[in-house]
Formats: sequence, structure tokens, C-alpha cells
Amino acid sequence: MPRARVHNFSISLDGFATGEGLSADAPFGHAGHRLHEWMFATRHWGGLGLAGPGDAAAGTAGVDNAFAERHGPGIGAEIMGAGKFGPPGWQDDPGWRGWWGENPPFHTPTFVLTHRPRPPLVMDGGTTFHFVDAAPAEALDLAWEAADGLDVRIGGGPTMLREFLAAGLVDHLHVVQVPILLGRGVRLWDGLEAWEQQYDVEVVSSPSGVTHLTFTR
Amino acid sequence: MPRARVHNFSISLDGFATGEGLSADAPFGHAGHRLHEWMFATRHWGGLGLAGPGDAAAGTAGVDNAFAERHGPGIGAEIMGAGKFGPPGWQDDPGWRGWWGENPPFHTPTFVLTHRPRPPLVMDGGTTFHFVDAAPAEALDLAWEAADGLDVRIGGGPTMLREFLAAGLVDHLHVVQVPILLGRGVRLWDGLEAWEQQYDVEVVSSPSGVTHLTFTR
Repeated sequence: MPRARVHNFSISLDGFATGEGLSADAPFGHAGHRLHEWMFATRHWGGLGLAGPGDAAAGTAGVDNAFAERHGPGIGAEIMGAGKFGPPGWQDDPGWRGWWGENPPFHTPTFVLTHRPRPPLVMDGGTTFHFVDAAPAEALDLAWEAADGLDVRIGGGPTMLREFLAAGLVDHLHVVQVPILLGRGVRLWDGLEAWEQQYDVEVVSSPSGVTHLTFTR
Repeated sequence: MPRARVHNFSISLDGFATGEGLSADAPFGHAGHRLHEWMFATRHWGGLGLAGPGDAAAGTAGVDNAFAERHGPGIGAEIMGAGKFGPPGWQDDPGWRGWWGENPPFHTPTFVLTHRPRPPLVMDGGTTFHFVDAAPAEALDLAWEAADGLDVRIGGGPTMLREFLAAGLVDHLHVVQVPILLGRGVRLWDGLEAWEQQYDVEVVSSPSGVTHLTFTR
């Protein structure tokens, strides 16, 4: 059976998946890059910040990298919230094409949940953005169909992910807790009392300082 | 230099150190015993729940136990908040002597912060409860004096601990994160943005499922 999976979803020690003050220059607000440094440092991501581009051997190759690599294989479609696709107000900019340039790292049909749909955007590398005004379960049905038997990635951000978790639509959740206190922003876990009881939970800390938590059913 | 230390302070994955609905029958409210099962299961605590009393070999003897054991040695006094000493309203009960019976597990002078002081309570095993109406820094001065060159334990609960953290009065903080979602209660980390930046942080997960975080300066 295909599964709905979440990968590399990073939160602070106090539970925030994004900071305050989101803008085109600050996709995660005052959090900056701190929630994702562990990921950029992996070999899978090219060891960004550790070496120049093109250095294939750059980056960490341990537990952080093992988790980071799971982002792609077996995925046939992604669903993301409007808050992930662009900064506040991107719906007013007809030329906005996402944060990721012309070859986004999704490489599948990608459904962007928004109350203001627009025509699909065909990007390089296999990513097509479909803009849909749909509830979580409806969006997942669209994604299953597009994924054609493969798994579906639930991409976040935190507001939409919380809705998918609360609706019982997620089969595998990988959360990465970074030991920083952001103090403010959007929390992942609000309103999810006892959610974990339907899942097998495994926790492993990494020498990088982050902690990987996996919830699987 | 003597230090102010916090040990075995347990929180849920969503950051709650206690649940809702605290009472004499439910010291942690709807959290029940779930935040401290890891600790009760250690050899240091007698492996409660794993074997009968008097079985000295009962209990886990790994990383959880190593941390649990650090609660006592080198400590000359404790400070605790009113919320740790008793259930809501204990101040109206002149006969309330704490949760712990006649031989509480502190074995030192123990300062209970309350706006309604009462005469000291001399217990067995070296614990004397002193009830003081004092701000965090004042209370710590009292405790340093009583500790006579040893360290001071900051005992919690979360409301008082947050005040001590915000005031920069804690030198070593050991937090244990339990992978459950309580959903409601009293959070530890609120209002502490960037607090961790003054500390060395180490994180290690345990086979029991909990994660130990230490913050040291």
C-alpha cells in the first residue's frame, strides 16, 4: 500500500517549524537557516556551507545524511501548503514561481493548497505545480492518483501539516528537532494531544546535535 | 565555584512539564506518571514497576540511570516552587507535609517559594522545608548560604524554573524529553528565545525512548 510520508521536517526545541517575520528575503523569518543547517551540511545536499559546489565528497555521511536521502525515493507526488510555496502575499504576484528556481527539488506532480488557484506551472526536472483549493483528504486523493502507486510526500509547512496529522492522513512522520529556542513562530504540535499513540516512535540523536524522531504506522 | 543545577526535569515532546487538572490524586494532572516512567524504571529509583521493593538489582542501569543518579551527589540545598510542594490549595491545609512522606528524597535544607510562609518543617533524613516569600535571586542567596559550599538544586516546577532560567541563575540544566504529546498543561520553554546560546548543549537519546538534553555553562 502506498503511504503518505513526511521527511526532514525541522522544528526548534520549543516546537516552532518557522519563525516570525516571513518574507521573500527570510523564508523562515527570524529562524534564518538554523532549522536546516543539519540538512544543508549532508552529502545528499552537497554539503552546502562546507565546501564549494561540485565537490561531490563534501558533506556529512552519517545519520543526518541517511535520513536526508529518504526525501526522494519512492515518492510519486507532493502536497504542500500555500505557506511553503512562497512568502506572504505570493498569490498577488502572477510571476511567482516558487523559491527553488527552474528545477525544483520535487521532480513529481506537486499540489499547492491555496484558496486562489491559478494555472499549472510546468518546471524543469519533472516538477509541475498544480494549484488546488481542496481539503486535506481531497488533496490526498488527487495526489494518490498522480503518484500512480508510489508514495505521497506531505511537504508542510506547519499549519497544513498539523491539519494532515489531525485528520489521520500521515503514515510516516520524520521530525528533526534542533536544540535552539526560537521563542515565537508557528508550532507543529499544537492541538495534537495523544496523536503519537497510534504510531511506533523511534528517537535517535545525531552527533550534529539534532534529534531525529520517526513516527510510523 | 558552586553551581545551580537542575536534574531529571521531564517534559513532553510538545514541551509540557505538567498536565492539566492537578490534584492531590494527580500531581501531574492528565500526564499521570508518563513523564517520569523512564526515571522510576532506573536502578537508582529501585526499578519501580519492574520488580518488588528490596530487589536491589531491579531497574535499568544505562544512560537513564547515569543521569538519574546525578540528582543527589554534591547538592547542599534545594529550591522548589509552591507548585511542586503540593497540590493547588495546599497553603490552606496546615497539616500538608509534602508528597514524599516523612523521609523526602532531598536530604538537605529545602526552600519552598510561597507567598504564604509558615514555620519550617523538620523531616527525617536531613530534609528541612523552609517556606520563604522571595524572588529567585534572593532565594538562591539563601540556598547558597545553607548549602555551605556545595551546589544548589533548582527543583521546579516549570513556572518557577522558567523564572530562574530567564534570570540567568541556572548553571546546568538537564531536561528529559519524553516522546508523548500532552497537548495542554504548563510549558517549560515559553519566553526563553535564544536562552540556549549561553550554554554548551549536548543531546543523547536513550534506548528507553527518552532524550536527555544537557545545557552547561
